[in-house]
Amino acid sequence: MTDMNQQQGPITHEEIFGYHEGGKLSVVSKSPLKTRRDLSIAYTPGVAEVSRAVHQDPAMANTHTWAGRLVAVISDGSAVLGLGDIGPAASLPVMEGKAALFKEFGGLDSIPIVLDTQDVDEIVRTVKLLRPSFGAVNLEDISAPRCFEIEQRLIEELDIPVMHDDQHGTAVVVLAALLNAAQLVGKDLEGLKVVIAGAGAAGIAITEILLAQGIEDVVLMDSRGIVSRERDDLNAIKADYAGRTNPRGLIGGPKDALEGADVFVGVSGGKIPEEYLTELAEDAIVFALANPDPEIMPDVAAKYATVVATGRSDFPNQINNVLAFPGIFRGALDAGARRITSQMKLEAARAIAAIAVADGLSAEHIVPSALDDRVAPAVAEAVAACVRADAQR
Amino acid sequence: MTDMNQQQGPITHEEIFGYHEGGKLSVVSKSPLKTRRDLSIAYTPGVAEVSRAVHQDPAMANTHTWAGRLVAVISDGSAVLGLGDIGPAASLPVMEGKAALFKEFGGLDSIPIVLDTQDVDEIVRTVKLLRPSFGAVNLEDISAPRCFEIEQRLIEELDIPVMHDDQHGTAVVVLAALLNAAQLVGKDLEGLKVVIAGAGAAGIAITEILLAQGIEDVVLMDSRGIVSRERDDLNAIKADYAGRTNPRGLIGGPKDALEGADVFVGVSGGKIPEEYLTELAEDAIVFALANPDPEIMPDVAAKYATVVATGRSDFPNQINNVLAFPGIFRGALDAGARRITSQMKLEAARAIAAIAVADGLSAEHIVPSALDDRVAPAVAEAVAACVRADAQR
Repeated sequence: MTDMNQQQGPITHEEIFGYHEGGKLSVVSKSPLKTRRDLSIAYTPGVAEVSRAVHQDPAMANTHTWAGRLVAVISDGSAVLGLGDIGPAASLPVMEGKAALFKEFGGLDSIPIVLDTQDVDEIVRTVKLLRPSFGAVNLEDISAPRCFEIEQRLIEELDIPVMHDDQHGTAVVVLAALLNAAQLVGKDLEGLKVVIAGAGAAGIAITEILLAQGIEDVVLMDSRGIVSRERDDLNAIKADYAGRTNPRGLIGGPKDALEGADVFVGVSGGKIPEEYLTELAEDAIVFALANPDPEIMPDVAAKYATVVATGRSDFPNQINNVLAFPGIFRGALDAGARRITSQMKLEAARAIAAIAVADGLSAEHIVPSALDDRVAPAVAEAVAACVRADAQR
Repeated sequence: MTDMNQQQGPITHEEIFGYHEGGKLSVVSKSPLKTRRDLSIAYTPGVAEVSRAVHQDPAMANTHTWAGRLVAVISDGSAVLGLGDIGPAASLPVMEGKAALFKEFGGLDSIPIVLDTQDVDEIVRTVKLLRPSFGAVNLEDISAPRCFEIEQRLIEELDIPVMHDDQHGTAVVVLAALLNAAQLVGKDLEGLKVVIAGAGAAGIAITEILLAQGIEDVVLMDSRGIVSRERDDLNAIKADYAGRTNPRGLIGGPKDALEGADVFVGVSGGKIPEEYLTELAEDAIVFALANPDPEIMPDVAAKYATVVATGRSDFPNQINNVLAFPGIFRGALDAGARRITSQMKLEAARAIAAIAVADGLSAEHIVPSALDDRVAPAVAEAVAACVRADAQR
């Protein structure tokens, strides 16, 4: 892998559309299919023996078809990147890119599956009917709050790993970055006052993993302000988190939330006025993750924060979920996990953080590069070890 | 491509299972994904431009995603090879093989999709929901008579080519072989008396294509005997063909059907006693296509027939649908066909037959080798020309 220095000028429209012409993926045969003998082995009559064997021992579907290690990248196109509800066909280029990343970083085969429905029951039912076709499910670009119910029901009803990457991939990398940022500014992780702007897929999952990590003072904000027990306009998910976050019972807007806060995490797509940052505590940490336009530009944020990260590759500290999902799925499949647990996500975050530590922490280096090919294997091993440990309990 | 001479001894169990370990397919990225720039083009932020473009112009899904030329190989595992209803997981090795053949002979990407349901409505609904994920549907190993309704409804309800290969792939190659066999024995094609043993997916489709070719005297047989207007035990499909075949109003069993017949086509899996063949006309044609055990062995059939074909690669004249489906789908996709028409199937058969003619017809050579890589391009061109001609009408 090479670094940013390879970048020569801005990417052009022609370059992007040229790259995408005909799509980004291809299906190839792993073994030759040139002779009559190849044909008799790969197809009839030889293949009948394999089908009969799988029929007699279903576990052989995991070892003698590609399904056992195949990840389905599934979307309904309801929340694609920052583009919103552009539908399944338009989401396909993103899903193809995801599949390419699974192969490049995780060494996993995957297929994009885009569904022409946004009905929760129908999506769950369809994925269950497709179940024998693959070995894991990466849900992608599905709008909140539907994404929470879809993921939860699939986790409960399928016997294979299921993860909505927009939630947990992002959350895992945010925790990894926060582990290192806290160490850098010399603050106790569990004692941090954290404000999360954005109560969608990413915001909710970040809240969840920070709580799981033992951070108690997490304040969640949506477009209407601080999520608190006082609000009567919250959906079921937000109402649940209103009861589990905001221990100081804050009410009001961003300015109120940021007063004395150690950490601001933006996953809202909105903007944060500079003056609000004056409310932050000493040695603050700002993750402005909205793409392509951060909630606040890093040079401005740096005036009020010691450590700054964004989602962009052209600034230091890129929080990119490609650091998480290839290794998480690879580890889960390597170890034969049936579920991706909270503990596996915490271990994944620690594995990502450890690589940046090994290279030497600095305010400009709290996470590894998105292209660092040491990350996915380390994450996979950490996740697989977690599965093996669970199995021994 | 090489020929039978490459075959060295029987295929071993170890050879088959070794070949299938981990599955037969892999998904690869068509372009490099090594630099930060690659990542910014293939994934965010670059991919957003392509998604936006597809959202604005849905036709771009055909040119800038892989879906436009992707074939879904779909099965419910209800009639897998000769193994019967072994279920979706056990059918997957066959679907992977099919996908490998699509790539090798048609140059087409395809993905196996196996469904955990045998409910007709649910299968149709699921494929419709998956529609944006691919550009054509190859139905495979679905039991009769369900396969007829599923294919018909998908053809009517989808805007992309749909074909059940067990029906039409086989029928196209049978017609190709019959065109050449009739020429070889010097009989007028349309005047042939044809007996088809087996009224399942293949038997019905062979009947249909022979009628479409203008052959009038087709007699269909099921396990209970000749399909005739006299029978009251026929399902809706067979009852329909009882009214459109058997012009001489024959009743009874195989012996009655074979009396004076010019052609016997076996797609039943059953057996035909040698003495029945004595009923055949002079210069008869026998296609005993049951796999792996033909209805009658070719050396025996040769005593009563001038031209004999089977489904096996170790006898002359192998009737294998790999001669048809890669070229049919390739031609349909190349020409942007919305449907695979009866005319396209007839043209495909003529293209296959023409290659054997060009190489010189003989009783041992009425169809090209299943490995002949001239076939799929010739079939694709014939099908595409048919689409273009339709477009000009």
